[in-house]
Amino acid sequence: MSVVSFAPRQSVEQVEEGNELAPKFDAQGLIPVVTTDFNSGEVLMHAYMNEEAFTETIKLGEAVYWSRSRKCLWHKGATSGLVQIIREIRIDDDQDCVWIRVDVQGGASCHVGYRSCFYRAVPFGDEIGQPLGFTETEKVFEPEKVYGDAPNPTQL
Amino acid sequence: MSVVSFAPRQSVEQVEEGNELAPKFDAQGLIPVVTTDFNSGEVLMHAYMNEEAFTETIKLGEAVYWSRSRKCLWHKGATSGLVQIIREIRIDDDQDCVWIRVDVQGGASCHVGYRSCFYRAVPFGDEIGQPLGFTETEKVFEPEKVYGDAPNPTQL
Repeated sequence: MSVVSFAPRQSVEQVEEGNELAPKFDAQGLIPVVTTDFNSGEVLMHAYMNEEAFTETIKLGEAVYWSRSRKCLWHKGATSGLVQIIREIRIDDDQDCVWIRVDVQGGASCHVGYRSCFYRAVPFGDEIGQPLGFTETEKVFEPEKVYGDAPNPTQL
Repeated sequence: MSVVSFAPRQSVEQVEEGNELAPKFDAQGLIPVVTTDFNSGEVLMHAYMNEEAFTETIKLGEAVYWSRSRKCLWHKGATSGLVQIIREIRIDDDQDCVWIRVDVQGGASCHVGYRSCFYRAVPFGDEIGQPLGFTETEKVFEPEKVYGDAPNPTQL
């Protein structure tokens, strides 16, 4: 198998119009990642990868993130079984964001138990001032049963 | 019309399970935003909003971002005509990311001229080492004609 390598970023034309993978990691060494369901197109989650996580994802064909709360590589599903199988990886124009399209084993991606992390809609326009609306009415799994006493990653 | 207001973040339960909008802006005052096409589900772009941009988006029903390169509010389409009409706004579990579903006037969202900013696929698994593959073969518009001499926002 070939080695995963990232090209140096040399020009705007190379980055935007070229066919070399030359990702930009931010000051913390991270690149944001949008994860969607391959079949429904639904956005499941938004997370980050560092160079190692992106390399592992490309090699393994399963989503590997960098956990900012736990400060470690995060092979999604290692604890919960909810592995994300990569169907496609996309990179954006200036190569500072990744989009992965996945199949989710077990059907959920959110630590709260929902299918998608984006289970609430924000009222806008004429609906301003209304409460958030839940777009999923039932959880796919009970978090306590899957994660046990592991600390909740949400930070205030 | 009611006033757009953000609730203080008081507990994990409130943020994750509640119906109050209590977004978390990062150390730079920004929240990442994923923009998808309402009909196709395609991810069009990934950008950022500050508190004012998010408020304007909610009030206006059109996407208003914060431009990190130009350091100003960025009412998408003000220059190009490619306005993004909001169909739905979602917030994620810990309320540190926004997903907007839009209709795009003019059919393109990428400054390079493509429909989506994510017009290249990254080979993975058995395909490692192959060049990026273009998923769009034709540009929707010619950037020089739309943006003229405006500086390219891509930074190396």
